[in-house]
Amino acid sequence: MKLEMICTGEEVLAGQIVDTNAAWFANTLMERGVECQRRITVGDRLEDLVAVFKERSTQADIIMVNGGLGPTSDDLSTEAMALALGVPLVENKEWRSKLEAWFAKNARVMAESNLKQALLPQGAIMIDNPVGTACGFAVKLNQAWLFFTPGVPFEFKRMVKEQFIPFIEEHFPLSEPVSVKKLLTLGHGESALADKLEVIPLPEGVTLGYRSYMPYIEIKLFARGQLAIDSLVTIETEVKKILGNGVVAEDITTLDQEIHNRLVNSGFSLSIAESCTGGLIASGLVAFAGSSAYLHQGLVTYSNEAKVKVLGVNPQTLDDYGAVSIATVEEMAKGARGILDSDYALATSGIAGPDGGSDEKPVGTVAIALATKYGIYSQMLKLPSRSRALVRSLGTAIAYDMLRRELLGEAVIVDYSSFSRFSK
Amino acid sequence: MKLEMICTGEEVLAGQIVDTNAAWFANTLMERGVECQRRITVGDRLEDLVAVFKERSTQADIIMVNGGLGPTSDDLSTEAMALALGVPLVENKEWRSKLEAWFAKNARVMAESNLKQALLPQGAIMIDNPVGTACGFAVKLNQAWLFFTPGVPFEFKRMVKEQFIPFIEEHFPLSEPVSVKKLLTLGHGESALADKLEVIPLPEGVTLGYRSYMPYIEIKLFARGQLAIDSLVTIETEVKKILGNGVVAEDITTLDQEIHNRLVNSGFSLSIAESCTGGLIASGLVAFAGSSAYLHQGLVTYSNEAKVKVLGVNPQTLDDYGAVSIATVEEMAKGARGILDSDYALATSGIAGPDGGSDEKPVGTVAIALATKYGIYSQMLKLPSRSRALVRSLGTAIAYDMLRRELLGEAVIVDYSSFSRFSK
Repeated sequence: MKLEMICTGEEVLAGQIVDTNAAWFANTLMERGVECQRRITVGDRLEDLVAVFKERSTQADIIMVNGGLGPTSDDLSTEAMALALGVPLVENKEWRSKLEAWFAKNARVMAESNLKQALLPQGAIMIDNPVGTACGFAVKLNQAWLFFTPGVPFEFKRMVKEQFIPFIEEHFPLSEPVSVKKLLTLGHGESALADKLEVIPLPEGVTLGYRSYMPYIEIKLFARGQLAIDSLVTIETEVKKILGNGVVAEDITTLDQEIHNRLVNSGFSLSIAESCTGGLIASGLVAFAGSSAYLHQGLVTYSNEAKVKVLGVNPQTLDDYGAVSIATVEEMAKGARGILDSDYALATSGIAGPDGGSDEKPVGTVAIALATKYGIYSQMLKLPSRSRALVRSLGTAIAYDMLRRELLGEAVIVDYSSFSRFSK
Repeated sequence: MKLEMICTGEEVLAGQIVDTNAAWFANTLMERGVECQRRITVGDRLEDLVAVFKERSTQADIIMVNGGLGPTSDDLSTEAMALALGVPLVENKEWRSKLEAWFAKNARVMAESNLKQALLPQGAIMIDNPVGTACGFAVKLNQAWLFFTPGVPFEFKRMVKEQFIPFIEEHFPLSEPVSVKKLLTLGHGESALADKLEVIPLPEGVTLGYRSYMPYIEIKLFARGQLAIDSLVTIETEVKKILGNGVVAEDITTLDQEIHNRLVNSGFSLSIAESCTGGLIASGLVAFAGSSAYLHQGLVTYSNEAKVKVLGVNPQTLDDYGAVSIATVEEMAKGARGILDSDYALATSGIAGPDGGSDEKPVGTVAIALATKYGIYSQMLKLPSRSRALVRSLGTAIAYDMLRRELLGEAVIVDYSSFSRFSK
């Protein structure tokens, strides 16, 4: 089966929303053994849309079309498909009544333009959208089935999971089983990872892929066929042997999710005092519902005065060692933990750049401390040649990893091989 | 001139990095009057790459190829282009020596795999990459120039600005001048905006586009030709008349940039106390270099205990009115401002959901206060039927807008027409 995707709409050519849909879609299908072989993104010109629908329908078996079902004048996917098929647009009574009910239920006034969303190419199969005003639809043209879905991510994802995947699994059963294993790594660049791992012999059917989730890089072990699947465990062990502490999680794409889960399940409480990471550690956790169960507070103490007044850092410490120092970050962590006697406290202080560096402490110097009820762990890392955003996100990731290791009862301060550290 | 883009690599079909490149590229070129008419994303199969290079080179005049120049085994763009041209790969001596110098300068060991990055199709024009290890190159095939660039965003952007844009401006001069005006709006959905603005007559050459930067929607007025350009001022006035306070900024995509600029220039200091926004307000500002000049502290006081201990909120207030209330958020703002006698303090407290709502205060209830040296402004908004992420980002945006209006000497509490408010 040849699967392709067409992303439509000016907001796609110039926006991000649907691009994340495309990534999610390809990724989701790939993990079910179906590769999206080509993705085409076109703008709002009606003739371009008609042309690409006709062209790809002679090449692919299934085409996922995303976007352009909205109510505005530059949403033209439906009209273009009708032209490609040579059929008129007809109002789908079922969807029109759903629309009216949807707006009534949400106590909103239905804009006139929404009525357009009930018009489908004659003969199209309506695809329900349980969470939005744009229904999808499916049509057959030449050799291909074209599936039309809205650009709103949570609407799109739900329709893919509930309707698109069951359809292809029924009509295009896989010839062989597939499996994927993901390892989240921290501290190695993609090329360094590739160099380190190329010594591992990969049996037929196993492919090694990389995906960047700054500052993490995910290693994806994809296996097609039972023999390949059986070999995954051995390969995974090899990868972990080579990368050591560089592997920080499995089958998730960020550590904040891992920290959130572990804190929720353990019942431990956390306070955070951030300087250079400036709220990233806290907001990463607050993003998850239920974080209020363990997060006492996240204090962005950016100025020295705030470090003294809010966290009780000794002014003498700031004078003697500077704001970016093991001594200061340890007092920040102790202070943050003490306010509400939290089980744990994380603290960061660093020079994110691009300015503010010195010979002694260049841009990329980041001090991190983890305070527990029984003691304190700290380290000062060197993260040179990196952007402000990357220094901040790396500092956040390493802080999460220190807490993760503590919660697992592992050594908190470890070598990541790709970061160097100031000696205390 | 017909411009297209080809994004390559498995990490593109399944990743985000290059997708943001594509959006940025199309957007950047569009503002120069050059529309990217099609974007094709293909995976790592060598034959697919060769096929798409050959196919599009007969359709487009210029093709931007992004990604697949890395050192890993699944970076195949260069090899594929050589095959499409029917020429061998030859080492580019100039780039090899640059590579060696680059690694020496950055005190890093050059991985063997990096040498691959000095191989170019015979006859290709090498395009310098001043900030990375992958050089770009340009080749002519059929009617099209193909420009190859690396996927790393800051490398890609710099090469586009410094080399690609000058090239097309020289070889494909615009037939007529173009201009674009962007208005950042808050609180209106895209379809509501379209409905409200469709009454504005658009002269020929003017197009109205929308781009979502959650929670903002940007209105883009694009004009091609002098008459169209001259009409932009009138249209902009019309838009502002219709949307009123919904227009919160011009020619920027988020309010944090605006707040950062105004605080840096005004010399005023800011403290922040966040509950439901959980660090988003602070981290949005810390993202900008120089924010330490005005940001005293950003306190994520998530628990009631933290509100009492860190901000000095009266426990009685929490008992009488609850954590999500005008009374509490005002005390949070006063407390945050008082710690270091900041000029301003913002405070938020709300129910981001999906749980925690009540009949009296449903999910989406967000209280926001701005404390100044002279008084305090507060409001409690209703943001129903929105995701946790959207409630948090809207709360952040409205808090920024309150401060923006104060800094401009405008009314701080205003109607956005699309949000309702609890009466005090």
